[in-house]
Amino acid sequence: VDVGVDVGGTKVLAAVVGEDGTPLRTHSVPTPPKESGARRLEQTLADAVQAVAAGHPVGRVGVAAAAFVDSDRRRAMFAPHLAWRGEPAAERLEQLLGAPVLLENDATCAAWAEATAGAARGAGSSLTVTVGTGIGGGIVLGDRLLRGSNGMAGEFGHVTVVPDGIACPCGGRGCWERYVSGAALLAAAVARGARGVRTGDDVTGAALSGDEAALGAFTELGGWLGRGLAGLVAVLDPEVVVVGGGVGASGELLLGPARARLARDVVGHGHRRLPDLRAAHHGPEAGLLGAVALARRELR
Amino acid sequence: VDVGVDVGGTKVLAAVVGEDGTPLRTHSVPTPPKESGARRLEQTLADAVQAVAAGHPVGRVGVAAAAFVDSDRRRAMFAPHLAWRGEPAAERLEQLLGAPVLLENDATCAAWAEATAGAARGAGSSLTVTVGTGIGGGIVLGDRLLRGSNGMAGEFGHVTVVPDGIACPCGGRGCWERYVSGAALLAAAVARGARGVRTGDDVTGAALSGDEAALGAFTELGGWLGRGLAGLVAVLDPEVVVVGGGVGASGELLLGPARARLARDVVGHGHRRLPDLRAAHHGPEAGLLGAVALARRELR
Repeated sequence: VDVGVDVGGTKVLAAVVGEDGTPLRTHSVPTPPKESGARRLEQTLADAVQAVAAGHPVGRVGVAAAAFVDSDRRRAMFAPHLAWRGEPAAERLEQLLGAPVLLENDATCAAWAEATAGAARGAGSSLTVTVGTGIGGGIVLGDRLLRGSNGMAGEFGHVTVVPDGIACPCGGRGCWERYVSGAALLAAAVARGARGVRTGDDVTGAALSGDEAALGAFTELGGWLGRGLAGLVAVLDPEVVVVGGGVGASGELLLGPARARLARDVVGHGHRRLPDLRAAHHGPEAGLLGAVALARRELR
Repeated sequence: VDVGVDVGGTKVLAAVVGEDGTPLRTHSVPTPPKESGARRLEQTLADAVQAVAAGHPVGRVGVAAAAFVDSDRRRAMFAPHLAWRGEPAAERLEQLLGAPVLLENDATCAAWAEATAGAARGAGSSLTVTVGTGIGGGIVLGDRLLRGSNGMAGEFGHVTVVPDGIACPCGGRGCWERYVSGAALLAAAVARGARGVRTGDDVTGAALSGDEAALGAFTELGGWLGRGLAGLVAVLDPEVVVVGGGVGASGELLLGPARARLARDVVGHGHRRLPDLRAAHHGPEAGLLGAVALARRELR
């Protein structure tokens, strides 16, 4: 069986993926603390793969990681929330599992899943933007993933949208993800006087029940999403833009104001087709599904 | 003979381009006023092609225009400084010339020229940013030009770098080209007390003779260039970035501070190779050379 694994800062999610690209069985364990090191992380992943395979021989493995991955898809170069610092993760996992492994950035994998079997299926080109704790993304042009010379293309979250703006853990200031994320949504709602909200999900709930402050927060967040997308569309001119991730799952609450702002801000509006802005088709499995799809394509 | 034509807001530059990709003869005429209409513009281009061909049969024609060009490279959809508004310009030129014509955005053509026979030759991926009256650009990935679903990819100049910033003729605010252009350079120098400067070229001259205000203006402009490039590098992760155009021709005066700012601002610095930031190889002929190279590749 082919297995996909999503490695996030808090959780490792593994799934056996059927020939039709859907998850058949899943298995989830906590991500080991960063301090316990890279070997421990790799063992946890290998154990999760074996657990979800449940005795069936493991075929190809696709790992979607919250990490910068090198252009050969073998090394995890840097990951703020994981123990990897240039480790040859794919090679070590292959030794532990006796099966071929492809390693890729999680948002890049999600973009591939949306482009090949999700919301952007059939589009000539697409961007996928995942909005959650931060912003990740990926770019698919024709039948190719744009990986970049370091394997780092699609780092949309750290495009500056406000010069010298809010400080970002990346070391920069004014990064897009400081203005569009679960934390930004919560902060916007609280600033507008929303009561009883403690998470981005609470804000979504309040907005769905008509709370003005929560709705205002979505308008603000959607506006920032649209502003940033206008820049990406000026650069890449994609046919479809997909918005996913935990905050993206709030759908039109976020996409409505984003679409309006994008239409107003993008260069040449009135003289161009605007990209179709769509909610992601896949949920939390997007990354691992894309990783398996890539593994099936790349690992022979 | 194959002929390239660059159509700018003030000047039409035509050249016979040799098999080796260098201009053999050039011919330049003023661009007719916008008010005189599309037919007049097309006749002017056809006349310039015939004049520079000097009686030799015209083979393929590549037209690099300061315009949005549709994805089929046949229509000039919109051009702030030219008379085209969706006209089938390539078809009309073919009728006037009896030769096949390829039409493409001028900065996109320049990017192709730099990638295939200029500063980014041999690079796996490159961006070219042309800095002059405004900012244009193009993206080359492998052996392919990224054109976008509307043919509008690479409109770097209208990425917002300051939310609600300086008003731009495009209708937006805070566009990158408001902060990095010949006019911005001049304004920065004047604000710093530079005397006797009336154009961006004057500022370059003053900086080369050590004028502090002019040097400060280049530092400011280069900083904005580097900030914007950091965003493009986060998105595209290119191997090489080429800076051309009239202001780009000031070379290290501009590229030095831009390189420093890019290195400081780009996401993952310290964990990635930075793109090589280079001055353009081609001058004002970049667009028409790229247009001919594209015509030779695309028109059989």
